[in-house]
Amino acid sequence: MKIIKGGVCAPKGFSAGGIRCGIKMSSQKKDLALIYSENICDTAAMFTKNIVKAASVQLTQKNIENGKLHAIIANSGNANACTGEQGMDAAKRMVQSIADELQIDPSKVAVASTGVIGVPLPIDVIEKNIGALKNSLTADEQGHLNALEAIMTTDTRKKEITVEIEINGKTVRLGAMTKGSGMIHPNMAASHATMLTFITTDAAVNSSVLNVCLQNAVTRSFNRLTVDGDTSTNDTIIIMANGEAGNTPITGFEKHDPRIYADLRGLEENNNLKIFYNALEFVCISLAKMMARDGEGATKLVTVTVNGAKNEENAVILAKSIASSSLVKAACFGADANWGRVLCAMGYSGAVFSPENVDVSYKSEIGEITVCQNGKSVSFSEEKAKEILSSCDEIEILVNMKEGISQVSVWGCDLTYDYVKINGDYRS
Amino acid sequence: MKIIKGGVCAPKGFSAGGIRCGIKMSSQKKDLALIYSENICDTAAMFTKNIVKAASVQLTQKNIENGKLHAIIANSGNANACTGEQGMDAAKRMVQSIADELQIDPSKVAVASTGVIGVPLPIDVIEKNIGALKNSLTADEQGHLNALEAIMTTDTRKKEITVEIEINGKTVRLGAMTKGSGMIHPNMAASHATMLTFITTDAAVNSSVLNVCLQNAVTRSFNRLTVDGDTSTNDTIIIMANGEAGNTPITGFEKHDPRIYADLRGLEENNNLKIFYNALEFVCISLAKMMARDGEGATKLVTVTVNGAKNEENAVILAKSIASSSLVKAACFGADANWGRVLCAMGYSGAVFSPENVDVSYKSEIGEITVCQNGKSVSFSEEKAKEILSSCDEIEILVNMKEGISQVSVWGCDLTYDYVKINGDYRS
Repeated sequence: MKIIKGGVCAPKGFSAGGIRCGIKMSSQKKDLALIYSENICDTAAMFTKNIVKAASVQLTQKNIENGKLHAIIANSGNANACTGEQGMDAAKRMVQSIADELQIDPSKVAVASTGVIGVPLPIDVIEKNIGALKNSLTADEQGHLNALEAIMTTDTRKKEITVEIEINGKTVRLGAMTKGSGMIHPNMAASHATMLTFITTDAAVNSSVLNVCLQNAVTRSFNRLTVDGDTSTNDTIIIMANGEAGNTPITGFEKHDPRIYADLRGLEENNNLKIFYNALEFVCISLAKMMARDGEGATKLVTVTVNGAKNEENAVILAKSIASSSLVKAACFGADANWGRVLCAMGYSGAVFSPENVDVSYKSEIGEITVCQNGKSVSFSEEKAKEILSSCDEIEILVNMKEGISQVSVWGCDLTYDYVKINGDYRS
Repeated sequence: MKIIKGGVCAPKGFSAGGIRCGIKMSSQKKDLALIYSENICDTAAMFTKNIVKAASVQLTQKNIENGKLHAIIANSGNANACTGEQGMDAAKRMVQSIADELQIDPSKVAVASTGVIGVPLPIDVIEKNIGALKNSLTADEQGHLNALEAIMTTDTRKKEITVEIEINGKTVRLGAMTKGSGMIHPNMAASHATMLTFITTDAAVNSSVLNVCLQNAVTRSFNRLTVDGDTSTNDTIIIMANGEAGNTPITGFEKHDPRIYADLRGLEENNNLKIFYNALEFVCISLAKMMARDGEGATKLVTVTVNGAKNEENAVILAKSIASSSLVKAACFGADANWGRVLCAMGYSGAVFSPENVDVSYKSEIGEITVCQNGKSVSFSEEKAKEILSSCDEIEILVNMKEGISQVSVWGCDLTYDYVKINGDYRS
């Protein structure tokens, strides 16, 4: 697997574009994006589990039912959520207008929105600029970057990844973009955050297989991510595969019921499905870590690794509880090796374990320090701990349960003044 | 019911005291407290559900089993948690030393600790000052205040309440103190926060009845409180009743199994048990609201009231999800009427409801404004909303589900820069 450039435009047959149409009234930033494949794609998607769903989510869920897509249109600056029938009408008009412009079937178009909730979507300005949106489509990296910019809200970094693999001697590419920094909380399965993630690939792979791959990858990536515990009304992750790489179609789960979880890790390494899945998992984990690092106001990526756990489920519960704790997050910001908060967060996680077995250490590029052994304080240099926690923008909290062999990492970030600032006055 | 002064010393036969012995090394504040009744008390208590329990909690759970207590000794500045056998040894020595000093049975002494986790408790300085602690006991209000000061950590206000009721022509008093501002999260039943709450009463009431009363009161008070979602290793709430008021003993649940929840609200108003329960519930709700208002870094008490709910359980889940949302809390700090975050938090709460029925309004002393009707935005003056949210230190988020008749209020606070500051560098 090679990391390359190009984003969603790197796989053959895809183009993308992005413009400013004026949804974001108080800034000059782009706010309308398009991803398009000339050929109809096989597709899979996952959405927020929030009971309050944006109109765009509801419409896309319907359009994706048959597993086929031509294009994704997305906007930032407005979530098109909690606006009743007017919102659904706007989502439909958005899809219809780009379908007319591209001369494609509107039921093969996905729509995604992100931004403020409860304010009617200014559909008129979208329709007025739909021609310009279509004209912005290009198959080079600039198209990808324009689309990516147009879905960003409080994001401070461009989060994208592109990889190349080989399947049966054919070059296959996956390109991806994601936005999302606040409202990020584990539990996509299928749920998340104001997270929009769009992945394209030129692999030949049908929607049933894509579904299983996506569920597996999301479980081990976005589902192991936490920023602030809120789960958005708009989360959407879509993968489109147009088959233009010309590989032998990837098979293995055609008849698999996507509602039943199949664990792909058991497959042999040289299996085509496994090669494709590994690439997709790498793409999703890379994006999830970028999201954690770009958490609203974050100064640090905090990886929490629980090993020696009874089982994976237990490890995930423990690691997420630590990474989600406001007190742990604030201590990471303050570079305070306050490991008692780590044990405390484990204790109220709901997972059953023996506190008297637990070891805790902190790690960063410059070193590692053990601060708790067998559930008790050990003497350690507070100075060295502070140095480890403060000198890098990536730190790791390592917990050893000494109860089994399962290991899981989850990703979060610190809690900072800027988180409060950004969310205390988001709209002004 | 009358609100009076005196705290835990107001009921007959109780004295209290507090001193500085040097557990809090970096400040000159008091850190060791004592509450004492000459007569043995009937007692009930509830503790954290965190799997990681401080040594003091473990010892007190044991000592309280027979329902009898003479005294409570408590310290701040050190949680005596995650310190292994050394911690349990320290807790036992703490209890033994005060029992020796007071010449009482050590198994009738409760111990509670709050402060940093994982640092060994300096038991020597406690033992060295145990005589001074005993000598600080007085039955006047100063004794109460000294004890209260000695259990405070990041608290900025003294949280106390005293009430007087009449039972069978006898004057009965309840006095209470609480500490706790961070790490406060619902779900005491029995669990909570670095919350220590001590309640004294001179009522004649046995421990079985006290148990049922305490469980009922905590369910409708501390369990409806949220500050930051963390649940501490040390939470303890204890009520002691010495019977010195001379009332006819309050009965009604002697044979009730305390593990089975009995709802006391159904009792007739002139029932002695109901009179006593109402006073206790008032005490607990008053303290819970004080804790929310004194949440770490908080500038506002935020009451979330859900009415028109299907049932109480549903209403509690919805209200807590709103009050716990970092985004809602940050919006309260910023006086931003961002009601979409309210609906979003309801949506991921796990409660089943129809978003299209929901009304949301904001309220404070200066007025009320409806911002969402039937799940949709209504036009409202952002300026007036900002005024309502910013001009008072008490605001209310009102949600009407229009699905039933249940109503529940929960209490929380806003998320501020100071929360991050306090918890980013707690120990320095």
